[in-house]
Order: sequence, then structure tokens, then C-alpha cells
Amino acid sequence: MSNVRVLMWGLGEIGTRAAKMLAQRPQVSFAGAISHQVGQDLGSVIGGDDLGIEIVESPQELGVVEADICLLGTHQRVPDLVPQIEWLLDQGISVIASGEEMIFPWATHPELADQLNAKARAAGVTIYGTGINPGFVMDALPLCLSSCCASVERIDVTRTSDFSPYGPGPLRSLGVGLTREEFERGLQSGMVDGHIGFKESMGVIARALGWTIEEYREDIAPIVTNVERHTAHISVPPGNVVGCDHSAEALIDGKVVIRLSHPQQIAPDAENARVGDFVHIHGDPPISMEITPEIEGGQATAARMVNAIGSVLEGPPGLVAMDQLTLPFATPLGRPGTSVGDHAA
Amino acid sequence: MSNVRVLMWGLGEIGTRAAKMLAQRPQVSFAGAISHQVGQDLGSVIGGDDLGIEIVESPQELGVVEADICLLGTHQRVPDLVPQIEWLLDQGISVIASGEEMIFPWATHPELADQLNAKARAAGVTIYGTGINPGFVMDALPLCLSSCCASVERIDVTRTSDFSPYGPGPLRSLGVGLTREEFERGLQSGMVDGHIGFKESMGVIARALGWTIEEYREDIAPIVTNVERHTAHISVPPGNVVGCDHSAEALIDGKVVIRLSHPQQIAPDAENARVGDFVHIHGDPPISMEITPEIEGGQATAARMVNAIGSVLEGPPGLVAMDQLTLPFATPLGRPGTSVGDHAA
Repeated sequence: MSNVRVLMWGLGEIGTRAAKMLAQRPQVSFAGAISHQVGQDLGSVIGGDDLGIEIVESPQELGVVEADICLLGTHQRVPDLVPQIEWLLDQGISVIASGEEMIFPWATHPELADQLNAKARAAGVTIYGTGINPGFVMDALPLCLSSCCASVERIDVTRTSDFSPYGPGPLRSLGVGLTREEFERGLQSGMVDGHIGFKESMGVIARALGWTIEEYREDIAPIVTNVERHTAHISVPPGNVVGCDHSAEALIDGKVVIRLSHPQQIAPDAENARVGDFVHIHGDPPISMEITPEIEGGQATAARMVNAIGSVLEGPPGLVAMDQLTLPFATPLGRPGTSVGDHAA
Repeated sequence: MSNVRVLMWGLGEIGTRAAKMLAQRPQVSFAGAISHQVGQDLGSVIGGDDLGIEIVESPQELGVVEADICLLGTHQRVPDLVPQIEWLLDQGISVIASGEEMIFPWATHPELADQLNAKARAAGVTIYGTGINPGFVMDALPLCLSSCCASVERIDVTRTSDFSPYGPGPLRSLGVGLTREEFERGLQSGMVDGHIGFKESMGVIARALGWTIEEYREDIAPIVTNVERHTAHISVPPGNVVGCDHSAEALIDGKVVIRLSHPQQIAPDAENARVGDFVHIHGDPPISMEITPEIEGGQATAARMVNAIGSVLEGPPGLVAMDQLTLPFATPLGRPGTSVGDHAA
């Protein structure tokens, strides 16, 4: 694989980080960029020299696009992404999406997933969703660890995150700064929505391990502070909400087989909340893993997209998930297919 | 994949554990068994009912063997394994080997590796080596974690193991019970040999990350106890050796880029040695992971062999390593290739 032509679609935080990583890789060239920073050069958006790639607002403005793959960072939900992905399939372009539901679209939109899968197979290209969570901490990582087990009875994952770096938009979605009552109202109105991805993580774990989930439940609770907590963006008095503890459980035969929990809060050290990624596999043998602090989400999500390029381009056509692609790792092109061949030759 | 026919070759600790796991899987049937327990039924060796599989001493005694894959647990070193693997290739049987050097045979025997690769490709079958270490803790696991990184400068892995369960043979190879002087002599004679696999783990990490290792060094030191330590198998007085601390470093441009360390000792709690698997990735972002206690080696090695069956059978022909197969996980057949297809259909 000598040169990979990448189309960037969506230059929010993740897309911008991914573009910055790709700009440093000599095997990558940019085939175009679609985002709201219309008229700017892609290079200036990622804080570098001009790249001769003018950002356009819609795919139609690209003209003839010669791309192998698109890094798609526009939406979180499958229905919002389908029109964009179908346009890409029509051009014969493979897709790596950061939208949470794309990790395992069968979890929430099985018909759209089947539709995308059929179209991608017909087009001979691959669609893949990835990220840090969902996409790694609560699914790929416990799956990888489970390869050491003769049997698995239950998987528990907790990702306790420090939300201090984030600004007003993300803070609002967690209810940070609200009173308990406002938090409840925020939940009802949908303003507070916590984490997207539990069903997706559980779906891919269940498919891989051959489990059929019979019951699913979710809980979302405010994290209320006992002390004043503050960040660069907000100060919260004692008694108010500093984050939310969102969790989900999957059951088989009345027993919890997967429990995923994602407490996110600002200034966790103010009350000694221990941030980190924690995986417990109840199996034979049991495995108890922790990563402290938690893996930094923004950079890791962008890196997982970039590092997946090689294995997606070499992967089977269709809509695929992490259980169908090669072991992921950091590399200039995601998977050194050709170097393995060279090595062996 | 409805039924997989497995030939067992080598029923030591690992092979016996793997056979026990396979005996519980309805999709698996045994195609034969070769080991030193000649004349016994495979079922009795794994502590179960007779399976109608009489253990023979050599492959020639098997007669016509109809197997898809062989779990090979006979030797640690590539040259000892080559004749057995070549016999299997001649029968068109894929191979999963637990021998440490088979994780990445190019590290120590590049010519034999190329020879096996060419023969396996010609036969259209796959050869793969796996285990817990090498094969997971010091290679597959840090590689998988590195998929969250935009760049990696250095990888450090320490596996601190409790060697208390092991008997005389393994104890001798670590020098347990010896004086310092006897340990030094044991090193020189080769009786004390520590861990096999550092070069293999480094080789596959380097291939995956696109690194070219310029310098390699190894160190092996006795772990001397300050207190009396004992297990069911041995008592060691203060001042004597209770294990060995074997480590290796790979350098590029004069800088250490991989450091692997494997202190193994009996009764580590006697002096509060903290057992576990520890991975530190110096990258962007950095990742600091620990698994405590360390993943149990015997069961995990057997499980990794069993869990690899599906992905090896669906993998590319040739001699392959972990960077060429799908994300590993626990499953009845290693990889639900058909269920993915079913799901999507």
C-alpha cells in the first residue's frame, strides 16, 4: 500500500485531530475535505501549512473525488449518517466513522445496518465505526482480554472520566452545574443524555462471544458534589450536579452478564474519585485490569480511526465491526499488509 | 463452520488443558492424539469419559488422519518443531503451536520461517503460534492498546509472576533454591535459562509498528530472598535464590524503545513483591495499564490456542503472526465468521 487517498468529512474536534495525524504521514494524501469551515484550506484548520485542499460544504462541490477512504466525523446516530455513507458507497469509497452508533449499527438500527451492509458488499467497499468508547474500552479491550479465557461468565467495565477539559456544550449534556431537580427535568427533556454506546458495545461483545442478550436496562444518575468544584469553564457549589453516572446491564436467564458504567464528572480529584478504565472479566481464568488515568478520549478516538485505515482497506467488503478486522495497533497505515508480504517474500 | 476436526499433538500441561476445553465444545471433534501417554484414551488423560481416541506415539501410527487443525504442544524451539509442522502441512492440516519461538519465528530462525511460510502457502493452510507470554502480555496486549495512540515512542512491559505452583523441572530452570554462585554456574551451563520469547515479542511489535530494531540486549539476574520462603515443592533459606528476573531491551538510535521484564519467583508475598502484568506505552496519549494478579499462564495459553482456531482456519494461508489475524476473543470457535454472515444475511 504505497499511497492512501483520504477524504475528510467533518472537521470537529475528532476530525481535526485525525487530519493532523494524517498530515504527518507520507503515505497519505488528502482527496478533499467537507466541513463547515467553508473556503478555508484544510492545512490552516489543522494549524499547519496550506495543503491545497479547500474545504467545501457538501460532497457535490467536490467535483470528481478520487479517494480510497473517508474519515467521517459528522454525526453520532446511524440515521443521520446513512445518506452520507450511501453517497460515499456510490463513489466506491470505504468509510471509517466516529459516530457512536456506527460501532455496531445492528444494536439500534438493524434494518439500516443490513441495508448499508448489502450496499457496501455490492460496491466492494468496507464500512467501519470506531472510537475510544464505544469502540475500545467497553468492547474491543474486554474482548481482546477474553481471548485468555476458556470461558466467560460476565464482563464488567467502568470508565471513570475527568470531564474538566470540556466546554459548555458537553457540560450541558451531562447536566453539570444543575440542581438535582433541574437534572431530572433535563433527563426528561433529553437535554441531559449521558453516554451513547452501551447497546453497541454490548451488541458486539454478545455477537463475538455467541451470547443472546435477553434483557437490557439502563440507569442514569446525577453525581452530586459535597464540595465546591471548578474548572476553567464552570464553578459548581456543594449540593449541585458535577456530572452523571450512566450505566447499563445486559442479562441472560435473569443474570447480569455485561455491566458497563461510565461516570463522567468535572474535577474528580476534589472528592478523590479515581479516574480510569477498569475491566473485570469473570471467567476462567478471571482477569482484573485497570488503566489509570483513563485513556484520553479525543486523541484516542482520532488515533483509532487513523490506525484502522490499513485493516479496513484490507478487510472484507461490507459493514464490519471490530470482531471482523485484524488486531488493531498503532501504525502509519493501520496494518502493514504489504510489509508482511515483503518480509515473507 | 459446523464441525472442526482437531488433532492433538503433545499432551503436556498445555495440551491437556486445551483438550479439556475442546471436549466441552459440541462443534469440535477429535481427529487423533499423539503423545507419550501411548495406548490410553484421550478422554481418560483429560479426566473424562472415553472419547474413542487412542493416543499414539508418532503421526505414522495415526493411519489416515482427517483433521482441519492441529494443536501442537510438543516443543519450545522452531528447529524442533519444523519436522512435525512439515508433516502436518503435507497432510493439509493447519497448525496452532504453543512453542514460544513460534509466536514470531522470524526473530530467531528467519530461514526456517520463510521455508515454513512458503510450504504453508503452497499447501493452502495456516501456521500460527500463540500463548500468554510470548503471545499476549508482552506483544498482543500492548499492540492492541497502542491502537489508541497517534504515535508511540516506547513500550515497557513487566510480568511479575508467582511461580509457587510449579514443580522441580520449572523450578530448576529458574534456579530456585540455588546459592548465588550455583545460580551463576547454572546460567553458564544453560540449566538456568529464564524466559523464552523476548525476541519474538519484540519482533512482532517492531513489524507491526514499522520499527527496525538496531540493538538488542538481555539480562538475567537472581532474585535472592531475605526471608525463608516455601511452597509445596521447596523451601529456600534467606540468602538463596527464589527466582530469576529476566529482562530484555530493544534500541533504535541508541534509545530503548521496548523494555520487557519478567521477574518470576516463588512465594512473592513473603516480601511483598506485587505480582501482575504491567504495560506502559509512552505515546500520544500515554497509557498505563495493570492486570493484578498476573493472568494465569497455563490456562490462558491453552485458552488462547483454542480461541484462535476460528481465526486461523479463516486466516490467510502461510505462517502468520498476531498482527495478521482478527482481534482475538473468547468464543466456542475463535471467530464467528459464519454467524456474522448469518447475521448480515
